[in-house]
Amino acid sequence: LATFKLTVAYDGTGLVGWQRQAAGTSVQALLEDAFAELDGRAVIVTGAGRTDAGVHALGQVASVTLARDIDPPTLMRAINIRLPQAVRIVSAADAPPSFHARFDARRKSYRYRIWNAEVMNPFERAYAWHVPAPALDVGAMREAARHLEGVHDFTTFQGAGSDVQTSQRTILQSSIDAVHELITYDVTGDGFLRHMVRNIVGTLVEVGRGRQRPEWVRDLLLAHDRHAAGRTAPPEGLFLLRVDYD
Amino acid sequence: LATFKLTVAYDGTGLVGWQRQAAGTSVQALLEDAFAELDGRAVIVTGAGRTDAGVHALGQVASVTLARDIDPPTLMRAINIRLPQAVRIVSAADAPPSFHARFDARRKSYRYRIWNAEVMNPFERAYAWHVPAPALDVGAMREAARHLEGVHDFTTFQGAGSDVQTSQRTILQSSIDAVHELITYDVTGDGFLRHMVRNIVGTLVEVGRGRQRPEWVRDLLLAHDRHAAGRTAPPEGLFLLRVDYD
Repeated sequence: LATFKLTVAYDGTGLVGWQRQAAGTSVQALLEDAFAELDGRAVIVTGAGRTDAGVHALGQVASVTLARDIDPPTLMRAINIRLPQAVRIVSAADAPPSFHARFDARRKSYRYRIWNAEVMNPFERAYAWHVPAPALDVGAMREAARHLEGVHDFTTFQGAGSDVQTSQRTILQSSIDAVHELITYDVTGDGFLRHMVRNIVGTLVEVGRGRQRPEWVRDLLLAHDRHAAGRTAPPEGLFLLRVDYD
Repeated sequence: LATFKLTVAYDGTGLVGWQRQAAGTSVQALLEDAFAELDGRAVIVTGAGRTDAGVHALGQVASVTLARDIDPPTLMRAINIRLPQAVRIVSAADAPPSFHARFDARRKSYRYRIWNAEVMNPFERAYAWHVPAPALDVGAMREAARHLEGVHDFTTFQGAGSDVQTSQRTILQSSIDAVHELITYDVTGDGFLRHMVRNIVGTLVEVGRGRQRPEWVRDLLLAHDRHAAGRTAPPEGLFLLRVDYD
């Protein structure tokens, strides 16, 4: 048996997300089918985290164990030719037999992209949330984002249908940047609850619109109430950037 | 009657190009149908230049004359809601009755994008030409590109099926830039022949691969032979950036 660590990039447009579903095309199913064809038996591919339908990844990480050993560059090529162009293994490496992409993940980084202009850029329509002009208050959003750094109970920003043991997470970075019409939210943490990044972004946009003050985010954290936050931002603006391991 | 100058951006993926065709969806037809609905009669939309199937535009320019006058921001909004998300009017302005987007154009600028890496980036698959590793010789390509600046007969770089009075064009800028895997070719000229930019790029890539020396481009210009140049680069890497007027 040989275990591999894979880094996977995918354009989530039109996909049902990472996880295999009864209907629709998932990244996991595409990978598992490609590996099964190569390995001649059913193969399970484990992702560092689920991404929702329409969410993208530049650096999702997955683990897989195969019956036959194969050098990683050859493996990468053999799988990529079996995948649609929207999904690519961008690196592959040998891993110890115990390696588990989800359990061993220490930090994840996400980026959320907002296009803030009257007219949506056609090239951003599947890769950013269109928040029409007027201009959002980037300074207020930046200040609001900073309140999320540290150790907090993120119940308020948790989507419905979660079943996790604790809602406490440590956020190492939570920052807003803006270049012309493009506003970018970058967040790194030890873990994320369901819809957490998209709920945070919906909340930051409320602050950017001037409907709430930056301190509202701090109050929301203390409220532990999922109904208190802003709307869930749409999936197409979200990118899983990277997953870090020890 | 009221004449307008429009700047149009479009993602050319899946479109048959600018010009209305018997079959398939063209940008011109999408715009003409939207304007006809607004103006209550058939409308002709004239583009500064045709773009081929799959070619993109950030700043195509078009002229249109309508029966009823309307302020440009309102016009832009009314048309954009009638267009698919892949096509957007990004600015609209009143123009003199004589304005003609094609005849009055003085300069056009194109960009061609090349993704030079073993694995194609899924997010670039419709917006760049994948030229697999090994790395292209960017210095040689830069030198080759420079040979195209000036007044030349571009017969060698003209696609089949052209019917133009002269193949002489003035190229004001022809330059290569590279950032990591992305190689960018920028070219500005007073006009371009059919497939000219894509034929130039196919030729520059031959130089980048080391199969030809940079001086080959100078020799090709003097050859006046369409069969001498490199292959036509694929359409998805090409963007019409802007069109300038006096």
